[in-house]
Amino acid sequence: MELGFANVDLERLGRQGAPEAIFGEGKTAGQIVSIARALADAGQSPVLVTRISPDKAEALRTAFGAAFDYFADGRIGRVGAAPAPDGAGAIAVVTAGTSDIPVAREAIVTAEALGNRVTPIFDVGVAGLHRLLGHLDDLRAASVVIAIAGMEGALASVVGGLVACPVVAVPTSVGYGASFGGVTALLSMLNSCAAGVSVVNIDNGFGAGYLASMINQRETK
Amino acid sequence: MELGFANVDLERLGRQGAPEAIFGEGKTAGQIVSIARALADAGQSPVLVTRISPDKAEALRTAFGAAFDYFADGRIGRVGAAPAPDGAGAIAVVTAGTSDIPVAREAIVTAEALGNRVTPIFDVGVAGLHRLLGHLDDLRAASVVIAIAGMEGALASVVGGLVACPVVAVPTSVGYGASFGGVTALLSMLNSCAAGVSVVNIDNGFGAGYLASMINQRETK
Amino acid sequence: MELGFANVDLERLGRQGAPEAIFGEGKTAGQIVSIARALADAGQSPVLVTRISPDKAEALRTAFGAAFDYFADGRIGRVGAAPAPDGAGAIAVVTAGTSDIPVAREAIVTAEALGNRVTPIFDVGVAGLHRLLGHLDDLRAASVVIAIAGMEGALASVVGGLVACPVVAVPTSVGYGASFGGVTALLSMLNSCAAGVSVVNIDNGFGAGYLASMINQRETK
Amino acid sequence: MELGFANVDLERLGRQGAPEAIFGEGKTAGQIVSIARALADAGQSPVLVTRISPDKAEALRTAFGAAFDYFADGRIGRVGAAPAPDGAGAIAVVTAGTSDIPVAREAIVTAEALGNRVTPIFDVGVAGLHRLLGHLDDLRAASVVIAIAGMEGALASVVGGLVACPVVAVPTSVGYGASFGGVTALLSMLNSCAAGVSVVNIDNGFGAGYLASMINQRETK
Amino acid sequence: MELGFANVDLERLGRQGAPEAIFGEGKTAGQIVSIARALADAGQSPVLVTRISPDKAEALRTAFGAAFDYFADGRIGRVGAAPAPDGAGAIAVVTAGTSDIPVAREAIVTAEALGNRVTPIFDVGVAGLHRLLGHLDDLRAASVVIAIAGMEGALASVVGGLVACPVVAVPTSVGYGASFGGVTALLSMLNSCAAGVSVVNIDNGFGAGYLASMINQRETK
Amino acid sequence: MELGFANVDLERLGRQGAPEAIFGEGKTAGQIVSIARALADAGQSPVLVTRISPDKAEALRTAFGAAFDYFADGRIGRVGAAPAPDGAGAIAVVTAGTSDIPVAREAIVTAEALGNRVTPIFDVGVAGLHRLLGHLDDLRAASVVIAIAGMEGALASVVGGLVACPVVAVPTSVGYGASFGGVTALLSMLNSCAAGVSVVNIDNGFGAGYLASMINQRETK
Amino acid sequence: MELGFANVDLERLGRQGAPEAIFGEGKTAGQIVSIARALADAGQSPVLVTRISPDKAEALRTAFGAAFDYFADGRIGRVGAAPAPDGAGAIAVVTAGTSDIPVAREAIVTAEALGNRVTPIFDVGVAGLHRLLGHLDDLRAASVVIAIAGMEGALASVVGGLVACPVVAVPTSVGYGASFGGVTALLSMLNSCAAGVSVVNIDNGFGAGYLASMINQRETK
Amino acid sequence: MELGFANVDLERLGRQGAPEAIFGEGKTAGQIVSIARALADAGQSPVLVTRISPDKAEALRTAFGAAFDYFADGRIGRVGAAPAPDGAGAIAVVTAGTSDIPVAREAIVTAEALGNRVTPIFDVGVAGLHRLLGHLDDLRAASVVIAIAGMEGALASVVGGLVACPVVAVPTSVGYGASFGGVTALLSMLNSCAAGVSVVNIDNGFGAGYLASMINQRETK
Repeated sequence: MELGFANVDLERLGRQGAPEAIFGEGKTAGQIVSIARALADAGQSPVLVTRISPDKAEALRTAFGAAFDYFADGRIGRVGAAPAPDGAGAIAVVTAGTSDIPVAREAIVTAEALGNRVTPIFDVGVAGLHRLLGHLDDLRAASVVIAIAGMEGALASVVGGLVACPVVAVPTSVGYGASFGGVTALLSMLNSCAAGVSVVNIDNGFGAGYLASMINQRETK
Repeated sequence: MELGFANVDLERLGRQGAPEAIFGEGKTAGQIVSIARALADAGQSPVLVTRISPDKAEALRTAFGAAFDYFADGRIGRVGAAPAPDGAGAIAVVTAGTSDIPVAREAIVTAEALGNRVTPIFDVGVAGLHRLLGHLDDLRAASVVIAIAGMEGALASVVGGLVACPVVAVPTSVGYGASFGGVTALLSMLNSCAAGVSVVNIDNGFGAGYLASMINQRETK
Repeated sequence: MELGFANVDLERLGRQGAPEAIFGEGKTAGQIVSIARALADAGQSPVLVTRISPDKAEALRTAFGAAFDYFADGRIGRVGAAPAPDGAGAIAVVTAGTSDIPVAREAIVTAEALGNRVTPIFDVGVAGLHRLLGHLDDLRAASVVIAIAGMEGALASVVGGLVACPVVAVPTSVGYGASFGGVTALLSMLNSCAAGVSVVNIDNGFGAGYLASMINQRETK
Repeated sequence: MELGFANVDLERLGRQGAPEAIFGEGKTAGQIVSIARALADAGQSPVLVTRISPDKAEALRTAFGAAFDYFADGRIGRVGAAPAPDGAGAIAVVTAGTSDIPVAREAIVTAEALGNRVTPIFDVGVAGLHRLLGHLDDLRAASVVIAIAGMEGALASVVGGLVACPVVAVPTSVGYGASFGGVTALLSMLNSCAAGVSVVNIDNGFGAGYLASMINQRETK
Repeated sequence: MELGFANVDLERLGRQGAPEAIFGEGKTAGQIVSIARALADAGQSPVLVTRISPDKAEALRTAFGAAFDYFADGRIGRVGAAPAPDGAGAIAVVTAGTSDIPVAREAIVTAEALGNRVTPIFDVGVAGLHRLLGHLDDLRAASVVIAIAGMEGALASVVGGLVACPVVAVPTSVGYGASFGGVTALLSMLNSCAAGVSVVNIDNGFGAGYLASMINQRETK
Repeated sequence: MELGFANVDLERLGRQGAPEAIFGEGKTAGQIVSIARALADAGQSPVLVTRISPDKAEALRTAFGAAFDYFADGRIGRVGAAPAPDGAGAIAVVTAGTSDIPVAREAIVTAEALGNRVTPIFDVGVAGLHRLLGHLDDLRAASVVIAIAGMEGALASVVGGLVACPVVAVPTSVGYGASFGGVTALLSMLNSCAAGVSVVNIDNGFGAGYLASMINQRETK
Repeated sequence: MELGFANVDLERLGRQGAPEAIFGEGKTAGQIVSIARALADAGQSPVLVTRISPDKAEALRTAFGAAFDYFADGRIGRVGAAPAPDGAGAIAVVTAGTSDIPVAREAIVTAEALGNRVTPIFDVGVAGLHRLLGHLDDLRAASVVIAIAGMEGALASVVGGLVACPVVAVPTSVGYGASFGGVTALLSMLNSCAAGVSVVNIDNGFGAGYLASMINQRETK
Repeated sequence: MELGFANVDLERLGRQGAPEAIFGEGKTAGQIVSIARALADAGQSPVLVTRISPDKAEALRTAFGAAFDYFADGRIGRVGAAPAPDGAGAIAVVTAGTSDIPVAREAIVTAEALGNRVTPIFDVGVAGLHRLLGHLDDLRAASVVIAIAGMEGALASVVGGLVACPVVAVPTSVGYGASFGGVTALLSMLNSCAAGVSVVNIDNGFGAGYLASMINQRETK
């Protein structure tokens, strides 16, 4: 559907099993509402809107009312209810620190909107292994793990060595100095000595949640 | 099992569903043979040995005879036969160019050693879309796609937009000048505008094959 | 013409076929108005002023009244009317996403000020190939294409493979994380596997429009 | 045409006005000969083969005899005769130094194979402006200029300011220390303060010659 | 002289021929005033204070009254009068564009405070060579040239080829996209093909003025 | 202790000899107070809170009253009194400039909270060696030296050659242009030609103070 | 002692407690022998010679006979016997993989030459935590740990969280692709979330062994 | 003089006071001999040839006999005798280590060919300050200092603080790991906290010698 400033894909749910999501950064509130409306009207629901500030969220609430939910810490919104989780396995979302939770939130909201059960495990960075090892059962019960970490990003390698399922690693921009806005964590995860680990862009919680859902849903086919 | 220079993990097959593979670079032929022997003796088979030169391969053939296969273009060897593919879906292995085939070989040998059916699709880079679109049926039939490309690495994004399954992107060091040994393809793939794409290290065919197998095998559980 | 802080080139229109444009960043409103006045007075018209904020634009409107047009989304202004397009071919301006439109605007305003017909094609990124392929006729009818994309910048390669005319690629700073403010798209475009693609600086819509005009005008000589 | 390791495009001459060229790096002599044979047999001629060592060139000479020409300093070969130049304007190929001539050779052989007249101007770097200014007539007579330079790459900007036609800038890996294998020249050219300059990959003489031909041929339509 | 937060060098004028200058960034207004007072009281005059905002300048004016001069475009101040220029040759300060003038101001104020005659030549970037060549007499009359440019920084090479005296090159952060805050100009200047060119840090007008003074003063000994 | 958003380690003092410190960046004031309370209640005292703004400090003062001390220049706070220094040797904290003092403060507050005697030596950068050599006795009396510098970071090498004890080098983000926010100082320190020098992250005063304490305390065992 | 090409420091043992070591790279065999002889003659023994090829080692054996020992895997030699370990604690030298052993060897030979007891623990990378945890007693008994790893370098953080003593982290150039010759491991270690970790240059086993000795010897004063 | 592959500047001695030098890298022995002959025949003597291998040097000796001198450690040759030093001051050439001598040699041969007196001071790196301070008289007697160092490049800052004359800093590629082929030394020198320091390209001994001569000769005018 051609809106002039955007080509909205109204058949994506049918074709790829998930509706198009709206990347909110660099779009005006008006553009976002128009695209969301076009998607919702075409039954491409729920509609996810990522990287939106509180005032853009406000514009969406005005437009969609109670049908819109906003998760402020992850700067992500959803138009339409999330489906009940289907019978597939769980997705474990693990963070190294408290400061990584916003990225985790984006991943969790995404995965839940796509019908998955999610197990959140926060602040279990490798400098205190006992914290991570205390959640070993949850980790091994998952059908896919999303490992989220900034700084040195070592969490992905350690988790990758503990589980037998795919690990989607998300580097975050948490850190300072030579963390270079997430580049160190990104490089670290790409060089993971554990097999079964792949990586998405820095702070890309949405991409991790979407990919994890693809992997998890596969199990139930 | 402690060999002095190496700690061989003899229970990995049971614990993670796949035996430890040997990264051949930086190890002597003698070390490689010793580790491979320890794994094979413990029933951790087939044993994959990656990144080995022809003369190291020769040493393995001397040690294991016909039980050893060497795939020269991918510099990868295997001790013990590959299992027959199980009933899971196929893994499509797609390359942008002829020069990416060595990395594809590493991925294919790995995936087959882990019991997967593989569909190879070579030299279908995006500068001639008709080549890629001609293989659309094979791509859509796969349960996971490995997209391998150097230079600008655009293949991953285009494939990601065409299929509904996970895409494991492998940047290669093919290119010159500002390709920076694969960095450009790596960055390009990390920034893919298609959802469902994740990335492994440059030239890491093994990692892609291993991860794709994890995802593909999941389907049959 | 020596203004103390600037050496204005009053013979450029005669010598190079296009008047000097004013790069607004790092100049005060007063400096911009003085230079624009000097150019307009010397018949070097229309005068383009790039990268100007709304308040600098306001100063220009005060100085030039209705002779000044401001295109807010592209932060570009023009003193004097754009000429009617001459008989040369069209320039297609293609963007991967909605967020790339500001850079496209700079290119379009520039190309039109230099007397070209422009065909805008927005939001046709490669993750949904059908959107791009739906505009194939317009693309093939153009005598030069400007391909504008951030993130992984794959649009340039795909377009380059579809058309037989020169493609001017403009990387944009749209993206996040490992897009590094446009560097990934820049590198991707420089490594394009399609022949006939060349690249200008990140977000340099002006440069692309100017060069495309040079190429397009050539046809009519 | 599917060769197993390569998908040869046998309709490119008709579709895009120029046959597919063979990038020789990373291909075996046997693969190159097979692809060249397939192209020549299909009338896609002359066939250019870039980045080939003398011994790969030898294999081509064995296969094609006198129909094959090899230009050792540019490591480029051609199967089939170059056409006589058509009536279009000339392409000026300018280098900053003697060491840039190999890249210039690749551009010249490419442009001539595509039917263009070429004016070579070598060793006219900006540290001795009189050398460049002495060729001003040739530069201004060209319909497109290819500016080739390593080190600080300033040649592109200076030439861009002297001519009214498009300048295709080619950074070369000539230099040492902080030239970083051509990166400095590449960045310098991307930031050119002269309008009308665009850039191709480091050492990409072929790409520059191909693009310059596209622009030059346009004039005669 | 030990101030607790600073070790002020009160004998520098005698030992090195020029008093210590105060780098204002990262120091409070109070600290700056204290250090300037200590220097002035010890006869180390005039005192230069670089990189200070208008409000820090205000604090200095309050403290020193008419003895303090502030040059707002260069964010540099001076406590105490500049000496009359001695008999040494002139320092030419050349900029590529209008936006480079703030850095030039820092260099000029510094050089004049150290007793030099300065010839400013602004906005003579290489994309319009006639502007630079029009000042050839002034350039050749100088005993040292400071060449200041952002973007591709080609000015240093071109000037270096035109004069027989040392050229101090100052890259500036003027530019956008792949200028990387001055890195491109810096690299370009370091790779200058002209002999006699050396480089100081990005935007370091002070360092250039100081060094040029050292070179210029030498002539009169 | 599981707080939902954080896993607080309440046995760290016993296990590692020092309580967990709170990295304040990216945590809300409420989260910081909760974690600090949990630690203090468990006798893990004093509690250090690094990288906190004045208003987060205010929240801590409200919560803990006089038990909380805030050191504004180092943006670090401490809940609970610092112990009297034990009998171990002194830690010398040396800075190149006045602008490095904030990082030094973080190191000093940390080291004192862990029971060490600290000798501060500020503004003794290598461009005026006499300033550093004037403190040689204090440097040689220390059992470990923390060397803090931005810009070219040469202080670490020079100090490393003067003392016989370990030197912990801390690069700071002080500088401009090609200092790249501390990267130059970091690289310089990693390449120190003096043996006995190791490096922590840019601006990581806490890490340096903690490590220096570990080394210093060792002496008294 | 002035040798023309070198200034040998013959009082370093007295002044800093350890003789000067010879960095063999970039020196001829003759220069190395001369310097070693000067040191040995002055009683500065044992003399360590790092980074020497087998043929330079041969020259040293010819010169010093049985007094020279060469450790080929670490490319390090020693003239004169290593002292018996004194009573100080042990230094644990831990590597992530087999390929890191050469760097470990340099550290071990250095530490032993300086009179330390060393506990080597090889091939215990974090992808198989049980391997590392199996050596927990040795790690906790050490007074300082040297953690050596390439690829993602996560070993340093995990070890840092397990022990209460200083950890000297050594990134190695082991890896491929985005390991960038050790840069990824270096950055990862600099960003370690564990306190008490500091870092030396890539592959700098000598520096780590020297620093660890300084820390370990301190304990016995 | 146009040689086809080169434009030789036969009036440079008259125009700039020094003949053109030949950069030998990337030129064949034949090309070098031709250019040198053209220069020598035109009285542009002595002719310097930099960066030439022993066999290219052999070709020059064959061509010019005893008139050619080759300095193997600096890979530099000279056709024609060096003039006797004129009455100007001395140039001190200082290196941090023995491995920096080849770059120093290039600088010394260049400076002497241009008629300067040179004082070489080798292996006085800052990790042993007494070595440098022992040469303070020579340093302070020089009219310009060339400071040559690899690794962390701190020598330039320390020397810059000790002398009152200009310091030309030359970073060298000596080092390993994070020295990045001289980049660390380069950045360090650009950020020097000492005024009066400027920098040339990595390993550019020729450029430093040429510039130092320009500065030194000025004194005698």
